[in-house]
Amino acid sequence: MNGKKIFVINGPNLDMLGVREPAVYGTKTLADVRSEAEEAAKAEGYATEFLQYNCECKIVEALHRAYDEAAAVVINAAAYTHYSYAIADAVKMLSCPVIELHISNVFAREEFRKGSVISPYAGVVICGAGTYGYTLAVKAAADKLRNA
Amino acid sequence: MNGKKIFVINGPNLDMLGVREPAVYGTKTLADVRSEAEEAAKAEGYATEFLQYNCECKIVEALHRAYDEAAAVVINAAAYTHYSYAIADAVKMLSCPVIELHISNVFAREEFRKGSVISPYAGVVICGAGTYGYTLAVKAAADKLRNA
Amino acid sequence: MNGKKIFVINGPNLDMLGVREPAVYGTKTLADVRSEAEEAAKAEGYATEFLQYNCECKIVEALHRAYDEAAAVVINAAAYTHYSYAIADAVKMLSCPVIELHISNVFAREEFRKGSVISPYAGVVICGAGTYGYTLAVKAAADKLRNA
Amino acid sequence: MNGKKIFVINGPNLDMLGVREPAVYGTKTLADVRSEAEEAAKAEGYATEFLQYNCECKIVEALHRAYDEAAAVVINAAAYTHYSYAIADAVKMLSCPVIELHISNVFAREEFRKGSVISPYAGVVICGAGTYGYTLAVKAAADKLRNA
Amino acid sequence: MNGKKIFVINGPNLDMLGVREPAVYGTKTLADVRSEAEEAAKAEGYATEFLQYNCECKIVEALHRAYDEAAAVVINAAAYTHYSYAIADAVKMLSCPVIELHISNVFAREEFRKGSVISPYAGVVICGAGTYGYTLAVKAAADKLRNA
Amino acid sequence: MNGKKIFVINGPNLDMLGVREPAVYGTKTLADVRSEAEEAAKAEGYATEFLQYNCECKIVEALHRAYDEAAAVVINAAAYTHYSYAIADAVKMLSCPVIELHISNVFAREEFRKGSVISPYAGVVICGAGTYGYTLAVKAAADKLRNA
Amino acid sequence: MNGKKIFVINGPNLDMLGVREPAVYGTKTLADVRSEAEEAAKAEGYATEFLQYNCECKIVEALHRAYDEAAAVVINAAAYTHYSYAIADAVKMLSCPVIELHISNVFAREEFRKGSVISPYAGVVICGAGTYGYTLAVKAAADKLRNA
Amino acid sequence: MNGKKIFVINGPNLDMLGVREPAVYGTKTLADVRSEAEEAAKAEGYATEFLQYNCECKIVEALHRAYDEAAAVVINAAAYTHYSYAIADAVKMLSCPVIELHISNVFAREEFRKGSVISPYAGVVICGAGTYGYTLAVKAAADKLRNA
Amino acid sequence: MNGKKIFVINGPNLDMLGVREPAVYGTKTLADVRSEAEEAAKAEGYATEFLQYNCECKIVEALHRAYDEAAAVVINAAAYTHYSYAIADAVKMLSCPVIELHISNVFAREEFRKGSVISPYAGVVICGAGTYGYTLAVKAAADKLRNA
Amino acid sequence: MNGKKIFVINGPNLDMLGVREPAVYGTKTLADVRSEAEEAAKAEGYATEFLQYNCECKIVEALHRAYDEAAAVVINAAAYTHYSYAIADAVKMLSCPVIELHISNVFAREEFRKGSVISPYAGVVICGAGTYGYTLAVKAAADKLRNA
Amino acid sequence: MNGKKIFVINGPNLDMLGVREPAVYGTKTLADVRSEAEEAAKAEGYATEFLQYNCECKIVEALHRAYDEAAAVVINAAAYTHYSYAIADAVKMLSCPVIELHISNVFAREEFRKGSVISPYAGVVICGAGTYGYTLAVKAAADKLRNA
Amino acid sequence: MNGKKIFVINGPNLDMLGVREPAVYGTKTLADVRSEAEEAAKAEGYATEFLQYNCECKIVEALHRAYDEAAAVVINAAAYTHYSYAIADAVKMLSCPVIELHISNVFAREEFRKGSVISPYAGVVICGAGTYGYTLAVKAAADKLRNA
Repeated sequence: MNGKKIFVINGPNLDMLGVREPAVYGTKTLADVRSEAEEAAKAEGYATEFLQYNCECKIVEALHRAYDEAAAVVINAAAYTHYSYAIADAVKMLSCPVIELHISNVFAREEFRKGSVISPYAGVVICGAGTYGYTLAVKAAADKLRNA
Repeated sequence: MNGKKIFVINGPNLDMLGVREPAVYGTKTLADVRSEAEEAAKAEGYATEFLQYNCECKIVEALHRAYDEAAAVVINAAAYTHYSYAIADAVKMLSCPVIELHISNVFAREEFRKGSVISPYAGVVICGAGTYGYTLAVKAAADKLRNA
Repeated sequence: MNGKKIFVINGPNLDMLGVREPAVYGTKTLADVRSEAEEAAKAEGYATEFLQYNCECKIVEALHRAYDEAAAVVINAAAYTHYSYAIADAVKMLSCPVIELHISNVFAREEFRKGSVISPYAGVVICGAGTYGYTLAVKAAADKLRNA
Repeated sequence: MNGKKIFVINGPNLDMLGVREPAVYGTKTLADVRSEAEEAAKAEGYATEFLQYNCECKIVEALHRAYDEAAAVVINAAAYTHYSYAIADAVKMLSCPVIELHISNVFAREEFRKGSVISPYAGVVICGAGTYGYTLAVKAAADKLRNA
Repeated sequence: MNGKKIFVINGPNLDMLGVREPAVYGTKTLADVRSEAEEAAKAEGYATEFLQYNCECKIVEALHRAYDEAAAVVINAAAYTHYSYAIADAVKMLSCPVIELHISNVFAREEFRKGSVISPYAGVVICGAGTYGYTLAVKAAADKLRNA
Repeated sequence: MNGKKIFVINGPNLDMLGVREPAVYGTKTLADVRSEAEEAAKAEGYATEFLQYNCECKIVEALHRAYDEAAAVVINAAAYTHYSYAIADAVKMLSCPVIELHISNVFAREEFRKGSVISPYAGVVICGAGTYGYTLAVKAAADKLRNA
Repeated sequence: MNGKKIFVINGPNLDMLGVREPAVYGTKTLADVRSEAEEAAKAEGYATEFLQYNCECKIVEALHRAYDEAAAVVINAAAYTHYSYAIADAVKMLSCPVIELHISNVFAREEFRKGSVISPYAGVVICGAGTYGYTLAVKAAADKLRNA
Repeated sequence: MNGKKIFVINGPNLDMLGVREPAVYGTKTLADVRSEAEEAAKAEGYATEFLQYNCECKIVEALHRAYDEAAAVVINAAAYTHYSYAIADAVKMLSCPVIELHISNVFAREEFRKGSVISPYAGVVICGAGTYGYTLAVKAAADKLRNA
Repeated sequence: MNGKKIFVINGPNLDMLGVREPAVYGTKTLADVRSEAEEAAKAEGYATEFLQYNCECKIVEALHRAYDEAAAVVINAAAYTHYSYAIADAVKMLSCPVIELHISNVFAREEFRKGSVISPYAGVVICGAGTYGYTLAVKAAADKLRNA
Repeated sequence: MNGKKIFVINGPNLDMLGVREPAVYGTKTLADVRSEAEEAAKAEGYATEFLQYNCECKIVEALHRAYDEAAAVVINAAAYTHYSYAIADAVKMLSCPVIELHISNVFAREEFRKGSVISPYAGVVICGAGTYGYTLAVKAAADKLRNA
Repeated sequence: MNGKKIFVINGPNLDMLGVREPAVYGTKTLADVRSEAEEAAKAEGYATEFLQYNCECKIVEALHRAYDEAAAVVINAAAYTHYSYAIADAVKMLSCPVIELHISNVFAREEFRKGSVISPYAGVVICGAGTYGYTLAVKAAADKLRNA
Repeated sequence: MNGKKIFVINGPNLDMLGVREPAVYGTKTLADVRSEAEEAAKAEGYATEFLQYNCECKIVEALHRAYDEAAAVVINAAAYTHYSYAIADAVKMLSCPVIELHISNVFAREEFRKGSVISPYAGVVICGAGTYGYTLAVKAAADKLRNA
């Protein structure tokens, strides 16, 4: 499966990362994150398809496409993490490695952020590592693929 | 803080890893995991102190010691994850990066395994990446230290 | 109202039915289901409008259109069943018969699948009858229309 | 299994259907329902055994008998639906198709009516289709038998 | 900030206001509401941008745009109020006054309508004042801006 | 009913408004609020009866008196909001418009403040608009009376 | 309706009243209670039908018979009070006054005894008055009939 | 203790009984209820002290006085029933019979009305018998005194 | 009490033990279990009365009879374990030793099977020992009788 | 602040302490408690203002007065502890030390007594020390003042 | 496996059995229990290893040792039963029969004692049989080994 | 009992008191606390045994020793407070006065800190008084001993 790409799928509001209120949210933009993820993937021998959608169904359809085209999926579903069973169902359908990613430690935040409807169907969950989590997630995906 | 070690602390029953029922639990032993973690740390420029205790208070005291001696802590508290507020309090006391680690995806297992009393005080949580999670955790610690 | 059509509305991921992993999900595709539903409707003297959307708001808008154009609605909202109050509100607005449909017996699956936010506003609920449920749902709709 | 009968089992208070307060509960009696169910079964090539018991254990024993004699079971357990684990255990024991039936949409009524202890062991659940639900249930049973 | 507009954002199904079943929902359409809101805003010295979307992500993106262009936001998220953490996150990102609005008194309706995932991030909540609530909301926004 | 007064009823501890710790609670006193409310009412053509009681039963009895004398009631029951079923019962007895008011956004504060036992019986709920909420509440009452 | 009887229906284990362990349960038997109830009914001008069944369905069927023959029903369903929705459904079907009776104050006993599935459908609930409760219940029934 | 009086204590809003909206609440006033209770008590050989307070602490103090002066207490605490632990504590202190009374069947109303904080300390609970409940309560008190 | 018998009471569906689907439920029938229980009792010096009822009230009445005739009771109430307060009340009435028995380990099964309404009134609970549990239960009863 | 008094505020039913049923509640009256508290305060160099009210709003107003006049507040709110958010709000407004006091160990009593709505705003909580708790509370207040 | 021993492992505070307050806890000491267990095991042809630890991790390690050396394990984990997932994990690792034992009927005691974290992984649970439970547990273990 | 000592038992992490991060946790060390407690005890005529253990079982065993040697026990079980039923059981076994102590007001902190499994068995609970709580606890113990 080495010829295929690692899909990195980002959910709603992540397009605002580093653009608004850098004093609060940091100055790294999603474009910066993209570069880091691509570099990490390249180091493991994979291309990436880096996507961001505010729209739930676009994420569902990206996951459908991942069914055929992805060696692995890294997904930061942002707010959808906590209620989108539609995305969860699309994740469940995949047989390739799926890495669930959160930039902050969701377990130390509001109560509703502690529950993820995607986790039961994801192989790996990484949170709190900041944007470096994308690099870790890509490495975790590569390791799963090595041992598949 | 670069001169100090990364503490890798393992909780109860992890001494049995790979020793008993390899068909069920895999064949990697804790010694193997230790090698991988040490190697990952060395690559990042850190020594490690790799510990395993079945005893809750020994983990508490290792965390006390980490207060002075550790650049970062990686902790797989195993079953204590779910109820040891004593360990949680000791983690909370630390100001260095703390990476909480679980070998399996605890969110896809029994209901009680979904709750961690340590997570609110840990910076990063990684689970489901298998024993490769130790490598990821060490890298996450190193990244936190680079950006501290 | 006999001159109007029965709307058959399908929710997210149902476009994958029978396409992916036939060993797991069966070999019937949504196109096959469409044929069966159309045939069942024709036998009852109705045309059908057979729709599938991954997008929540498209389903809302199809229900808005059904307000004027549908004699009855059969809806398999898939994952949206469990949280889309937007779809529930659109269903609630309808005065024609609404038949809620699930291919599998959702009451024997994961806990979250047991709750439907649409059921309180649907007249009839059918689940577990497989794709044959579409035929039953069309017949139930026709019966409701006969007795309206 | 085609030579065997479809059991249609009715629970407590259903003997009052259409007999008391027709203005409230409609004028169809259980005898009318029986005729419809028998006709639907005949159309599918099955005889029926149509039963009504107020007594929980008689339902349990009818289900025991169904073990040997029934091609399929349609069960409207009425109030027992919500608490009779004895009936649920007897349903669970069956390997033939079991169709759970409710005349009204129980999901739009009192809170306690939303829970069924039988559903986890029934293949198909149909509710809200009125007495026409018996016809649908028989058809669902026949379809399950065709595809068994 | 006086030169900027007050965004008035409406959620799913509100396009049906007064169009369908006027006997039930009243005869005021969203166009009527728009006129009232615009008039109220003009009286306070503000222009308005009046929007309605059935689509969750369009609301998210309108809120992103509001980040730059709005003096204040009035939001009636309709059904999304109760589960869209994506919209809640986008609201949370805003630093201008946000007024949450519901036409009916949601606290006197179904249980699920009592919870709003947006309220924690909105400054003001107004409900039950009918379409006149839009006028009140605009006035509340203007007052917040006067005292900011 | 236009000849009658709008009752503005304030609950426990509101007599301290602006008197103690102005740095924390602002410098507006209840007397200031009274002036604003009276002015808003006069603009709508109503006199006001502005009351403050720390005592639950005095609020109950003011509501009894409102039964005969009030065109509308604006009530900020303060802490009683969350548990006084006695006040809730007295509100329920009224047929004139009742506007429930909170100075702060109670939905963004402690958990217990999110529940109001009065809301189910109040027509309108306004919170978070600061003391300007009194003006909004009076306007909402006047609008309800115009459309009664 | 004066020509009809008051049904007094007793549930499981009440046949043991006063027979076993008089030191614990008192020495009044169900026969004594019957005499008191009959006397109270006679004083109000009613005959009684006094019944005791351990069997749930016999109580259901006695309630069916009460539909035609009873002026009022007094029911002490004993343990069935807490879970028999079958009896609750049969009570719900009655249009004559129904008085629910418990010998002890169930609200001061085990937690499960605090809930009654019958209460929502009974007009009057009396508990804790000991066997004198039968007299009170008969009087309550007679009063309801006087004012019907 | 026969020489002492039966206290009949009424809680908040009961002074409005039959005065306001007779079409809704019936035409019996508290004065009528008083006559009936006094007559019932006289028939049993007791005088009555009939009290109504909107104020929680006045009810507490009436119960303190009852400690010395009452042969028995009948209490309809109205809304306080559901939260006044102060009244519950004062009831708990009494050693004479206490009869808790509700005019309507609280178990068939809103959820919060199902819980009484007084019941655990009251000997008898009567509800749903309308104002006739006062007569029943007095009789229950007299019976308890006869058998004390 | 040695002259009396040990009652062994079995609940619903246990008549099917070993009769149906021996591959699933094992091949031991209730008759085999009876022999083992009788043998164990004989070894302890007791006769047995071995009963099986699907009917809840027959179990209640067997427990009533046990009141006079049993030295001890072993009860496997099967599904009734989880909801029959009628049986629980009858068990509570007994003063002889009562041993609650389950063939499988109910604590490792479905959630509802973890709760027993009988346990609070039973002296001993044994589960998971298979049909050998009957032997253990008889021995436990005999031990209780030896030490009574 | 040393020149000011320590307020000792007692809630409902505490006026009955030692007066009624000394065998149950002990023989110390509130007057005795007052002496002990005054003596303890004098030893620490403070005067006391010792108050008891059955009335919730009098306690609120005493706390308002304490705002100006008290060096510290000791409060035993009795039953109000568990539901009076009005008192809790008045406590919250204080900046002097507040010591919450209970004579018995409320954590070992009825479930509802375990929750205090005042505790989150009180600095110190003392319970179970009997009337000696007043002495401890005064000492705790004095210590807080020494270290303020 | 007959050559190996039955491990009998006892948890915290059981060393106090019969030593302290014999009037309350009985006079049998853990040494007495040991004799009985050893005798019962000898009768079944097994030696025993009888252990007691107050320390959670010593129990974990005894279970690790049991992995190699035990034919079966009888475990009375005392208070650890209710929260030690560390012990539960060690039990789960065993493939030999495990018998969970409680001296008293934990289901008739405090609420927290009803939950056991070990039960899901133990084959057999015995409670309430007093110290004779050790004999029963040993016999249950022997029976499991006979049928393994 | 005056000749015996007061045990002061401290739980996990309390050895870090004042040692680490004095800016956060204050500068008083456990040694300082020890001096204060010893001085307070001496003033009351008692010696102290001042202990600190991170290990749960050492605390259990200290409590066992206290059974013989302690006049009273002051226990600050720190994190074990919230889950150690083993310690709770050992406390329950004591007949001497037990004072539960927390340095901070646990009721104003994280939710889990509000529950104590020890409180039901402790006579007195003191929290929020800082390290002065040790002095208060010793005084409370002495008072209990004076009045024993």
